[in-house]
Amino acid sequence: MKRKSNYPALVLHGGAWDIPDDLVEAHFVGIRKALHIGWKILKNGGSSVDAVEKTITNMEDNPTFDAGKGSFLNALGEIELDASIMNGKTFRAGAVAAVKNIRNPISLARMIMDKSEHILLVGIGAIRFAKEHGITPCAMEDLLIGRELQRWLELQKEPLSSTKDVFRSQKKKNIPSGTVGVVAMDCNRNICAGTSTGGTPNKYPGRVGDSPLIGCGTYADNDIGGVSTTGWGEAMIKVVMAKTIIDIMEQSNGNGNVAAEKGIELLQKKASGYGGAITLNIYGEIGIAFNTPRMARGYITAGMKKPIIEV
Amino acid sequence: MKRKSNYPALVLHGGAWDIPDDLVEAHFVGIRKALHIGWKILKNGGSSVDAVEKTITNMEDNPTFDAGKGSFLNALGEIELDASIMNGKTFRAGAVAAVKNIRNPISLARMIMDKSEHILLVGIGAIRFAKEHGITPCAMEDLLIGRELQRWLELQKEPLSSTKDVFRSQKKKNIPSGTVGVVAMDCNRNICAGTSTGGTPNKYPGRVGDSPLIGCGTYADNDIGGVSTTGWGEAMIKVVMAKTIIDIMEQSNGNGNVAAEKGIELLQKKASGYGGAITLNIYGEIGIAFNTPRMARGYITAGMKKPIIEV
Repeated sequence: MKRKSNYPALVLHGGAWDIPDDLVEAHFVGIRKALHIGWKILKNGGSSVDAVEKTITNMEDNPTFDAGKGSFLNALGEIELDASIMNGKTFRAGAVAAVKNIRNPISLARMIMDKSEHILLVGIGAIRFAKEHGITPCAMEDLLIGRELQRWLELQKEPLSSTKDVFRSQKKKNIPSGTVGVVAMDCNRNICAGTSTGGTPNKYPGRVGDSPLIGCGTYADNDIGGVSTTGWGEAMIKVVMAKTIIDIMEQSNGNGNVAAEKGIELLQKKASGYGGAITLNIYGEIGIAFNTPRMARGYITAGMKKPIIEV
Repeated sequence: MKRKSNYPALVLHGGAWDIPDDLVEAHFVGIRKALHIGWKILKNGGSSVDAVEKTITNMEDNPTFDAGKGSFLNALGEIELDASIMNGKTFRAGAVAAVKNIRNPISLARMIMDKSEHILLVGIGAIRFAKEHGITPCAMEDLLIGRELQRWLELQKEPLSSTKDVFRSQKKKNIPSGTVGVVAMDCNRNICAGTSTGGTPNKYPGRVGDSPLIGCGTYADNDIGGVSTTGWGEAMIKVVMAKTIIDIMEQSNGNGNVAAEKGIELLQKKASGYGGAITLNIYGEIGIAFNTPRMARGYITAGMKKPIIEV
């Protein structure tokens, strides 16, 4: 039986965690806006790479999510950002980690993918690359919002030293972790995946989670599919989450739902980890799985009259 | 048929590239010394984690290899180092990337594994962690050797802008790429893997290759085996080399040679990449594969009277 294809297709997430009730609506609206932007590009014949970049920049600019503006502060009260993008056709990828003063880390990641022989640039080296390629650094104030400054000030009152502790206190307080990620397939059946994050609240300076790591937070292969993950980065790294899900997808006749579910099961079993994943296979079929109380997510594919959005 | 077990076991590499004839002896001697150190620890009942750390610190201190002292300089004439270690029993891991002024990055990676909730720290954040945990930064001069200063000065005369170009010119000039890596299984059958590197010559500041990335340069899982890779980092990242080899090993009845060979085939096919990998499975069996002209490597397991060393 020939399988029906649903491309173009677009799926995205705005983080998996215990999103508090009063932020659900903002997540819902943010995802709808982002889907609208990416879908317009894909419907008009634009590339999956453009769709992923523009959808993510919109979510980075939206203070609802823990990416770009509105990101968590690290233990020093700084904002350090991570992002990655991978083109499933060319296998090229770009990523940045622990970069300060960059408004849209996903665009810098894409620039590294497009204009350099490297994949991952970190810290001041990534800033140097940005400046050399016409991206002007922003002020920290352009990324900082009152909600996060307040959270950081409160965290400084507590004698917490580890992310684990912060995550535990987060759980108690229902604080969301809003990494954003997108997977898209365009009219030419090219798949692209990308992820962007401010990391974890009060993280150690220079800490890098799974989001900017190809194979952990992001993966795309035109022959199999694309993945973006979200959750506790250290556990994701231990099981190399995105590549593991892609491999399961390859072995399960391209079933992205099964792959995402099995991947998240493995995350819990092997690394006691919590998080979520979105997938898209070569037929434009969407897969979503998470083992957290909530995950903000949405998708739309050819043939659908309107997007599905859930938080 | 019950499979014979060969533990403890130790395998290591000193880089895969076109090692010039006049450096072969130094690689041979360096690998013999490092094997001696790691084997002594394992034979005396020490842990695989200790064996990996101490074997690699010995190779970092040896200016023959591109790790620690003797590392390549980046485009700014700085030395930026990467390393990672993973414990196959606990799934804990530690890694550093783009760190300056650290004599033994593998020891800092281990300290992150042992003393923090994080896995990967980069740049100045990693240095901060080192200082807080009693590791005193060294001077750049402690890492710099005449051979590499000379190479860097020569590279500045050429109008090269990309690593690709540098790698091409390297090939012409037979310049070695000497990332080091170790996989060990101790008397308790615990597997550990680690990798350390100075990266590629004249790399962009802040560039991170596969070595410090769990799943790309290093992976260990007591249920399957351990892997360390070496070669052109960007291609390794694209195929998530170490985890891919572990997965193939799991599917091929634990055959680490087949897994390493298939992995390197995949590297060449999917990412036009060149490099090598060492593996060790749950029986203490060793696997080695590379598609470069040379790879410096050695191993010893229980039952062997003396190590096998080849360059």
